[in-house]
Amino acid sequence: MVAVSPDLSVTAEVSAALGGLRGRRPLVQCQTNIVVAGFTANVLLAAGASPAMVDDPEETAGFTPAADGLLINLGTLSRGRVVAFGVAARAAAGVTPWVLDPVGAGALAVRTGVARDLLSQGPAVVRANASEVLGLIDPDDPQLGGLLDGPPGRGVDSGVGSEAALSAAVALARRHRCVVAVSGVVDLVTDGVTVVEVHGGHVLMTAVTGVGCALGALMAALLPVAGTPLVAAVAATALLDAAGSRAAVAAAGPGSFAVGLVDQLATVDPAGVAAAVTVAVRR
Amino acid sequence: MVAVSPDLSVTAEVSAALGGLRGRRPLVQCQTNIVVAGFTANVLLAAGASPAMVDDPEETAGFTPAADGLLINLGTLSRGRVVAFGVAARAAAGVTPWVLDPVGAGALAVRTGVARDLLSQGPAVVRANASEVLGLIDPDDPQLGGLLDGPPGRGVDSGVGSEAALSAAVALARRHRCVVAVSGVVDLVTDGVTVVEVHGGHVLMTAVTGVGCALGALMAALLPVAGTPLVAAVAATALLDAAGSRAAVAAAGPGSFAVGLVDQLATVDPAGVAAAVTVAVRR
Amino acid sequence: MVAVSPDLSVTAEVSAALGGLRGRRPLVQCQTNIVVAGFTANVLLAAGASPAMVDDPEETAGFTPAADGLLINLGTLSRGRVVAFGVAARAAAGVTPWVLDPVGAGALAVRTGVARDLLSQGPAVVRANASEVLGLIDPDDPQLGGLLDGPPGRGVDSGVGSEAALSAAVALARRHRCVVAVSGVVDLVTDGVTVVEVHGGHVLMTAVTGVGCALGALMAALLPVAGTPLVAAVAATALLDAAGSRAAVAAAGPGSFAVGLVDQLATVDPAGVAAAVTVAVRR
Repeated sequence: MVAVSPDLSVTAEVSAALGGLRGRRPLVQCQTNIVVAGFTANVLLAAGASPAMVDDPEETAGFTPAADGLLINLGTLSRGRVVAFGVAARAAAGVTPWVLDPVGAGALAVRTGVARDLLSQGPAVVRANASEVLGLIDPDDPQLGGLLDGPPGRGVDSGVGSEAALSAAVALARRHRCVVAVSGVVDLVTDGVTVVEVHGGHVLMTAVTGVGCALGALMAALLPVAGTPLVAAVAATALLDAAGSRAAVAAAGPGSFAVGLVDQLATVDPAGVAAAVTVAVRR
Repeated sequence: MVAVSPDLSVTAEVSAALGGLRGRRPLVQCQTNIVVAGFTANVLLAAGASPAMVDDPEETAGFTPAADGLLINLGTLSRGRVVAFGVAARAAAGVTPWVLDPVGAGALAVRTGVARDLLSQGPAVVRANASEVLGLIDPDDPQLGGLLDGPPGRGVDSGVGSEAALSAAVALARRHRCVVAVSGVVDLVTDGVTVVEVHGGHVLMTAVTGVGCALGALMAALLPVAGTPLVAAVAATALLDAAGSRAAVAAAGPGSFAVGLVDQLATVDPAGVAAAVTVAVRR
Repeated sequence: MVAVSPDLSVTAEVSAALGGLRGRRPLVQCQTNIVVAGFTANVLLAAGASPAMVDDPEETAGFTPAADGLLINLGTLSRGRVVAFGVAARAAAGVTPWVLDPVGAGALAVRTGVARDLLSQGPAVVRANASEVLGLIDPDDPQLGGLLDGPPGRGVDSGVGSEAALSAAVALARRHRCVVAVSGVVDLVTDGVTVVEVHGGHVLMTAVTGVGCALGALMAALLPVAGTPLVAAVAATALLDAAGSRAAVAAAGPGSFAVGLVDQLATVDPAGVAAAVTVAVRR
């Protein structure tokens, strides 16, 4: 086991970011998939952001620079969506910080290529499960190819735990100067130098579609209000984990859990988040 | 403050329309967006209508004339959807009354143009927030351009209250011979001559995605059973506001509120609607 | 009334299939519509399957053979989706058993043609309401055209009960060597030789959008774990009916019913299913 220490300064930064979210009410553009679009919008509204699900290439060029944050999520990929992703990533450059959620990278050939291409276009944060993080690495890459040791995912669920993708996450974060957040039982977030662990959440979070996608959206909402992309990614993870653990208490199953998760996102405050999760910096 | 008086004849017409909704079970075609399609269908089912989310251009031409009402909602616009909107609007002419919901008009350039074009094609009702109503007016319009005094919306949320768009709503209703319904804390509905206020609802209605979109769908369901488009728009607004205020009582947050809203739509009767909202005609 | 007898061997097979579902965690590809995609994924997750909503033609060719089951659902049809359906059906041939849900067949001309074409490409199961089953038959068919005696559906709801489509279902099952499941107050499932009735469920199942679509998805999840397509279709029907009747007990309306349905799918066990529904073989 790796030694970790709760980092009071990180905890304070997370609390400040969460406190700022409702005050700022950031406008978050989501280019996401047909499965989770409604749930994602409701999660953002509950957390205090203003979602705008603008995914048309023609509308994006003018809209993205006015948004405070952007999510690009590869679920239900299509050729039209890939065009829109490219337009949005270019329009966001230097203006609107954005999150890449490479759903299914590694398991589906087309989107593996799309995901790697988008990764090179400057996301502030990559949010993925372990299989997807590994899928972002080209096996023939002379520097990073050797980091691949886990099996690829099957469909959109991860085949391995977050720890198995940590080396890959650190390497990707360094090369692309971004934050990589690996979702799992323990969530790992790294900017290539620091590794932050978030302990919390509940297994029911894996029984509802779109919880991971919603996490990416929350990171996009926190980017404009947090001090750094690392803090934004950690704060979003802590917020969702706290809401999840609180919602699980009264849930009778995944249906009522999803409902309670949205309720909790709207009502939990920074102190409630700090009480429900542990944020630790790995030394 | 403008003097208003509860209008007993309007209240009676609203009750009659709501009573007719479940008896007739109107077939409502919805061309709507990926974010709210499921919620909209569930709202229509709960209220007693039969939803059909037919949005393909090739299917629309034959289907629209058989529908009792039609909704055209501009959320998640795309070039393909614009084609389908045009086909549906033409197929509906003189046969199927329809509602235009110009989501994001004024804030996004492409859809502002699409919305203005559809407005000229004969909707019975336009359902929008204040920013969107203002967005329907061309600033260079010699007659109406002077009515623009509020800031445009940012994303899909309104930047101003419903009252700020009332003059524009009346002018648009007169020019296009339609009803314009402006959603807000107080809902305003006008046919260009009469202005009806609906007081009720709950602030949680703004915390759930698709409540405004669902209102447009309910108006499309009430058009075939109400005496006039004005009564249809007022009755739909009163129904949703009543369900919202009733659902808010037991809600723990926006998640459980959305669930309760659908429950209430299925169970509230015309007397319950009349008890929960105030419908007043402005003189 | 036709005499029926509970068939203990069928009940045992159904229980075995349901028991196997959570152990195997089958990967189920869904090509479905924008209205129900999220609900369908949550139903599959709750029941113990791993959903993958892959609907892009380019991704499908490589993905479908790796999936354990496939659903093709015709709601919100488009030209692009039709292409994807064809690619998926061809990729599934001989490898991945699949379910055809011909939403709106009979009521909408374009999809009636698409549905009949897909039917000839080898689905293991067709899941439909009575109007849709009748819509699969060409009135000019010299052998089957005479079976058409009910009115076509209006929109996506059935105009007739399941019994009215039974002869058509048996004939289609024989010709296409597949199972046809006709949803209704009593669900009828036939492989062209045996007719199985499933008694259970609740009227609230017709008040929530996507319950029928979710049933098709559950059949796709059970195909890889059941002994035969007939057992898969019956087991999925029994599972959903049991969850529905259990969820109805505490529901305040269709909103809370939909939530409870997902909860129940995650918690009901084979014995609970057997207690809640009656499966009978018609002799």
